[in-house]
Amino acid sequence: MSSVLAHIGIATFDIEKSVALYRQLCPEVVVNETITVGEQGVIVCFLDFPPHSAQGRIELLQPLNETGPIAKFLAKRGEGLHHICFSCENLTEKLKLLAADGFRLIDKTPRIGALGKPVAFVHPQSTGGTLIEFEEE
Amino acid sequence: MSSVLAHIGIATFDIEKSVALYRQLCPEVVVNETITVGEQGVIVCFLDFPPHSAQGRIELLQPLNETGPIAKFLAKRGEGLHHICFSCENLTEKLKLLAADGFRLIDKTPRIGALGKPVAFVHPQSTGGTLIEFEEE
Repeated sequence: MSSVLAHIGIATFDIEKSVALYRQLCPEVVVNETITVGEQGVIVCFLDFPPHSAQGRIELLQPLNETGPIAKFLAKRGEGLHHICFSCENLTEKLKLLAADGFRLIDKTPRIGALGKPVAFVHPQSTGGTLIEFEEE
Repeated sequence: MSSVLAHIGIATFDIEKSVALYRQLCPEVVVNETITVGEQGVIVCFLDFPPHSAQGRIELLQPLNETGPIAKFLAKRGEGLHHICFSCENLTEKLKLLAADGFRLIDKTPRIGALGKPVAFVHPQSTGGTLIEFEEE
């Protein structure tokens, strides 16, 4: 499988309120269980839009404390679009290629993301202002 | 077909530079022809990520002048994530439901978007900080 735009991350102060909002906007939305990612100081909830649940999902992100990256983003920019995530087949190899192309890697080696898959972020300063995550399929 | 997250809009000063960037990030990307939307003062370019090209696309948006909404966004926030777009079956009906639910509509009736389909935007003040477009399939 080739790279797809797997999900977009949206920062929120209140994940339950956001879930209710997206249920109103899109009654067909499939709401998954909330996941706590202690290491990143966030709770996340994935929203699926059938029929293609491996592509074009929404990841809602709510901070658990005031020091994590989502808390800092909310303090600076407020609620809203936070990042986009592409899937890839081999993340270690992908990061080598991106580094060779001059992209600024936030994670130089993969770490484990909310879904238990290896992930890594690329800094928006090297991607035209968009924080970009890569996730190994 | 039910609502899906059809695309995400990314504002850029230079669409050609952004296309080159996404080709580096995702060599599998399918780049469509650039479209001029004079009424909105933008040129746009859709990027597809097979196999599901009706879901999870990227719409790059570059201003044609200094007065349109994308030019204003860039002046205020810089390059980056701008909006997300959901598809829907009947946009006129959808807008009635959204208005009844208290959403603040930027377009109270559908207008024709870059792809020749009826579209309408919902104000981020009523959607947790995210500018949301609906597009009739």
